[in-house]
Amino acid sequence: MSEVPRNHPRYQSLMLRYRLVEGFRNGLVAEAGLLAHGRGEAFDYLLGERTHDFAHQAIAAASALLLTARHPVFSINGNSASLAGPELVELARTQENLVFEVNLFYHSAERSRRIADHLRNLGLSNVLESATPDAHDLPQIEHARRRMHPEGIARADVVLVALEDGDRCKALVESGRRVIAVDLNPMSRSAQVSHVSIVDELTRALPVLREALRNDQTLSVDALHARIASYDNLSILNAAEAAIRSGN
Amino acid sequence: MSEVPRNHPRYQSLMLRYRLVEGFRNGLVAEAGLLAHGRGEAFDYLLGERTHDFAHQAIAAASALLLTARHPVFSINGNSASLAGPELVELARTQENLVFEVNLFYHSAERSRRIADHLRNLGLSNVLESATPDAHDLPQIEHARRRMHPEGIARADVVLVALEDGDRCKALVESGRRVIAVDLNPMSRSAQVSHVSIVDELTRALPVLREALRNDQTLSVDALHARIASYDNLSILNAAEAAIRSGN
Repeated sequence: MSEVPRNHPRYQSLMLRYRLVEGFRNGLVAEAGLLAHGRGEAFDYLLGERTHDFAHQAIAAASALLLTARHPVFSINGNSASLAGPELVELARTQENLVFEVNLFYHSAERSRRIADHLRNLGLSNVLESATPDAHDLPQIEHARRRMHPEGIARADVVLVALEDGDRCKALVESGRRVIAVDLNPMSRSAQVSHVSIVDELTRALPVLREALRNDQTLSVDALHARIASYDNLSILNAAEAAIRSGN
Repeated sequence: MSEVPRNHPRYQSLMLRYRLVEGFRNGLVAEAGLLAHGRGEAFDYLLGERTHDFAHQAIAAASALLLTARHPVFSINGNSASLAGPELVELARTQENLVFEVNLFYHSAERSRRIADHLRNLGLSNVLESATPDAHDLPQIEHARRRMHPEGIARADVVLVALEDGDRCKALVESGRRVIAVDLNPMSRSAQVSHVSIVDELTRALPVLREALRNDQTLSVDALHARIASYDNLSILNAAEAAIRSGN
């Protein structure tokens, strides 16, 4: 897959697939992660593989939430780490208090450690793993994915999740945290329950978010709060579903 | 995944995923096959996971093509073998001259043999592998997937392909063979170039096809030819895309 010509009409999509399969071969991505990526590819194909206006609006709200957060955390899994390593590094440069916490649906200590090492090797410093001996537990969900690092999600007020399962998203919301989801399926439970749903491909959305964070740093807290208050996630989800259904 | 309760709203979809992951673990399915299945899941989700009228119409045309064929062959890959083993066995009972030929996009002799063994273990007798020393070559495509077994696709007049890549579909069509595709994406090149495109999930479509073959055996060749002549694949593809876009 590394021999795809740059002028291939689906070059970006094929390069992402290459990153993901590399992640799988390196023990970062689970089998279920390959399946989930395929579903994402299909939705992105229907979206025309571009960042729509509803995604830009959600990203503006996400920027305001992150900039006003006391302790923002980005929950990372094998797919997001494999797909968006360089984009995560750029994001961390812009928002220095952002913590990255590895939390896996199909948990193994080995895979969690590999993902954390991968992120550290790329240059990220604030990297935690949920499954630590003194982890707290998120109510309502089971297995290792309920764990929250005491310096990470346990004390987070804003959590950004990408390509995350619906149960955990819902439990994070019900725990009182503000949740920003990046998900290509606006009908997924993750997108439906989150406060801000960015319906866009992760590696396209993150540079736009970084740019928003950079531009919004000069705004007052009042202006940021006003932006959050006026944001309506339901209308964003409806616009995203309409785009998928209509092909525009 | 084997512990999914039968009353789960997405039980069928989850059981298919289980079959596929089993196939992957047993060396039948390629990594790319997991990704491709995820794309199929997304399209089936948008179709409401049911067999639509446009699929029934395509299956009726496919039945007529198969019953009037001199030498019909079903091209099998890792995904179709893993997903639809029992359904293929039932199909072979109804159409006894149907040949099954293993042909892989990501070819390995080992994987091809495993798939052929898997099908024989299920009870299929007419199983061939494309990559045989005296194989013929299909023009226009490269790699092992161009191979055609001399007793299989090389002398086939009708080829049924499931979950197949567009290049090979196109080459099969341009070689003069009649091609029936089973593909959940009506916008895929496979669906676009084939003579009859069954836009449906494979394990749902095959029992319907078997039933059609059984019922149509009493029809005259003239009646079957008339059905083929009146079939319009373009309108079927348009109806399938409309269903995906509208959600009905």
